Amino acid sequence: MSGIKLSIIGAGSAIFSLKLVGDLCKTKGSSGSSVSLMDIDEKRLNSVHLLAARYAAALGANLKFEKTTDMKRSIEGADFVINTALIGGHGQLDASRKAGEMHGYARGIDSQEFNMVSDYNTLSNYNQLKYFLEVAHNMEEICPNAWLLQSANPVFEGTTLISRYSDIKVIGFCHGHYGVEIVARSLGLDIKEVNWQVAGFNHNIWLTRFLYKDKDAYPLLDQWIEKEAMKWKPEDPFDDQMSPAAIDMYKFYGRMPIGDSIRNGSWKYHYHLEAKKKWYGEPWGGADSDLGWAWYQNYLKASTDKSFKLALDKSINLLQEFPPEVMSREQHIPFIDALINGNQGRFVLNIPNKGPIIPSIPEDVAVEVPVIVDQEGIHPEEINPPLPKRIMDMYLAPRRSRMEWALEAFVYGDKRILQEILVRDPRTKSFEQAEAVIDEILALPFNKEMKKHYEIKK
Amino acid sequence: MSGIKLSIIGAGSAIFSLKLVGDLCKTKGSSGSSVSLMDIDEKRLNSVHLLAARYAAALGANLKFEKTTDMKRSIEGADFVINTALIGGHGQLDASRKAGEMHGYARGIDSQEFNMVSDYNTLSNYNQLKYFLEVAHNMEEICPNAWLLQSANPVFEGTTLISRYSDIKVIGFCHGHYGVEIVARSLGLDIKEVNWQVAGFNHNIWLTRFLYKDKDAYPLLDQWIEKEAMKWKPEDPFDDQMSPAAIDMYKFYGRMPIGDSIRNGSWKYHYHLEAKKKWYGEPWGGADSDLGWAWYQNYLKASTDKSFKLALDKSINLLQEFPPEVMSREQHIPFIDALINGNQGRFVLNIPNKGPIIPSIPEDVAVEVPVIVDQEGIHPEEINPPLPKRIMDMYLAPRRSRMEWALEAFVYGDKRILQEILVRDPRTKSFEQAEAVIDEILALPFNKEMKKHYEIKK
Repeated sequence: MSGIKLSIIGAGSAIFSLKLVGDLCKTKGSSGSSVSLMDIDEKRLNSVHLLAARYAAALGANLKFEKTTDMKRSIEGADFVINTALIGGHGQLDASRKAGEMHGYARGIDSQEFNMVSDYNTLSNYNQLKYFLEVAHNMEEICPNAWLLQSANPVFEGTTLISRYSDIKVIGFCHGHYGVEIVARSLGLDIKEVNWQVAGFNHNIWLTRFLYKDKDAYPLLDQWIEKEAMKWKPEDPFDDQMSPAAIDMYKFYGRMPIGDSIRNGSWKYHYHLEAKKKWYGEPWGGADSDLGWAWYQNYLKASTDKSFKLALDKSINLLQEFPPEVMSREQHIPFIDALINGNQGRFVLNIPNKGPIIPSIPEDVAVEVPVIVDQEGIHPEEINPPLPKRIMDMYLAPRRSRMEWALEAFVYGDKRILQEILVRDPRTKSFEQAEAVIDEILALPFNKEMKKHYEIKK
Repeated sequence: MSGIKLSIIGAGSAIFSLKLVGDLCKTKGSSGSSVSLMDIDEKRLNSVHLLAARYAAALGANLKFEKTTDMKRSIEGADFVINTALIGGHGQLDASRKAGEMHGYARGIDSQEFNMVSDYNTLSNYNQLKYFLEVAHNMEEICPNAWLLQSANPVFEGTTLISRYSDIKVIGFCHGHYGVEIVARSLGLDIKEVNWQVAGFNHNIWLTRFLYKDKDAYPLLDQWIEKEAMKWKPEDPFDDQMSPAAIDMYKFYGRMPIGDSIRNGSWKYHYHLEAKKKWYGEPWGGADSDLGWAWYQNYLKASTDKSFKLALDKSINLLQEFPPEVMSREQHIPFIDALINGNQGRFVLNIPNKGPIIPSIPEDVAVEVPVIVDQEGIHPEEINPPLPKRIMDMYLAPRRSRMEWALEAFVYGDKRILQEILVRDPRTKSFEQAEAVIDEILALPFNKEMKKHYEIKK
């Protein structure tokens, strides 16, 4: 991997960037690589740059670091670009959510059936989707052979959008499939003996194959449900893999939902805080309640504060904070290692459904599936057994429709599309309500360009 | 066509049956055919039998008639079976609707996005869908080579269901595409010079091709909208082809919806009576309002009363009531004539999407498309230009999902599926509401078998 250049867009998210840098340091053959850290927030950028350089030095890794606030400069000569930027940050997410709540849309208009994750905005996020394409189109000019590792949400919409409207090789990255390990651990299974597959869309994946020592392991899950499920309590708002919501979805759909898919159930689990508590546990009612999201905001703030503190206080031993023997669970660096150095690995990635990999889903839709990666490229596994018809028809089909509607709105502009999407939202009581909330969101100060783009056409 | 046997299931619907009989009388080569009228309502059956025989005699047609309350007997030796039966009649529709309204579902739970037609029940209609399959399976045993002309609603769900679960040749029949003639007439166009195509699903079709004297006729529609649309008033609740709803759908989707597709817009047009009046005109607010449906019930009652009167009063000249020179606009008899006598014709029929006829729709879904029929069979036209992406993604995709959900519920049983469908309904405010309304419907006296079928599985 000697001599590769990695550009991290939105690198100011310090913990995430340090994970990547740490993984790179611990990867044999990365010697001589350079990392360009890019963010428009200079304070965060400086802090993460300092930390990254000190951590690499402490590990004795031969890596070069640069920092820049200029995306185009960052991707110059890049072999891999990781886009993890959240345009406008959480402040804009909060403002959009508040605008929605003023008009009767609890948790904002982007909280939708099968997509309740609170920073996975697909409707009010013009700036974010536009930036996705901006990165890709700049790459076409500046580093046309580089890979784009799309890590910023919404990964499903983003990966599909970029792969349709750009020639850049794009892969969507998430880590939700590690939920399989939580299932295995909960049942007392040795993960090394578990033969598993997941398939679906990002944040919408299902445990299609689940064998333990070559035998169907679902009966073991049934036993756990009978004997252990009532004792379950969440450790934090994101701890939902074995929650009543997950079990209820499993009982209805016949397969276990994995990772953030559990947050993305139907309104049944999200009607109000009491419902959320019932299905995702006390006291928070999951990550996507006011309580759970406040917890997460505090967590983010604490992380950022900590990274500032680590950057300023040179007496702190970074190797203690980030143990050198442990790889992060992010897939990015092992993926690069597999592709460049042939260090073959199995990943769960978001790629266009060419083949198709999942039958009866169009080939220009990004699916999240297990793949083997080596120097020859990305080799999707055959999904066997296939996704059950009920999951295809009752879960993935409406989720795919929502993706298409969001992209239709974004690509075409015209606020009537957003209005029509909201007409299909159970929180909408009248067409006037849908009109009013869209106008409210378009009037937000950071949505000036969006407002122009969404003028009614013809 | 000599010697064919036609079985009409649900023949007690006198006006419809007399249309078919009249068409048959007026079709050369039908001489010697026999018609079996089947209904469980003996009073209606006797009346329609009397009328049919007298009308055929008045026309000098050589047709034989039989009547029976036994479906199996009726289809014995049949070449064509027309199923037009509404199991339980309007009384059961009304009871199901009332059960829905008790729990906050105005117009009943079956009134759904893109499917607001008040007798097109897909959820509470176990008895109806079950009868569809019963007819088909009896045909497999008794007249396996006969064609099943599926005329009873829901035609989309029914045709798809029967074609998936039976080997019988099934075609879905409707007449909604004649709305094209209303568009042409409204614009002052000679229909003979209009080159048109429609495509979609039953009650969900769009004017994909619209040429007048070989030139795009949509600009003529735009002119009409600018100059004439504001003067439009409905003549009856069903007169909606040029309504504000139709125009609004055209402006959003880029093509004109045709026939009952206009009733099947989104909630925007159906939130409440005022919305319905705005979009479908005063005073009724379209056919699917309380007012419009009451009008229709009166109309049906008057038709039935009239048919009884005609049957009893032999002094009435049937040729005056049903002029011999006019064919009804029902497609059934001309279709049979084309297939049997090679009297080639163009029809708009519901057939499985083999080919596919409409790309990206599975081949086991029934589509409504123009076809040429002759002695060799049914030849679908190439749909050109294709359906626009917005119609595919924002209208047909969610409508298809609803069809799949309804069939999943019907085929699998398990009331949790019905509950989950209602969770996706904007009228549902809590899961308990969805549970309660389903239990209410399952408790209706005519749903005993349905209730058993829908017990929670596992």
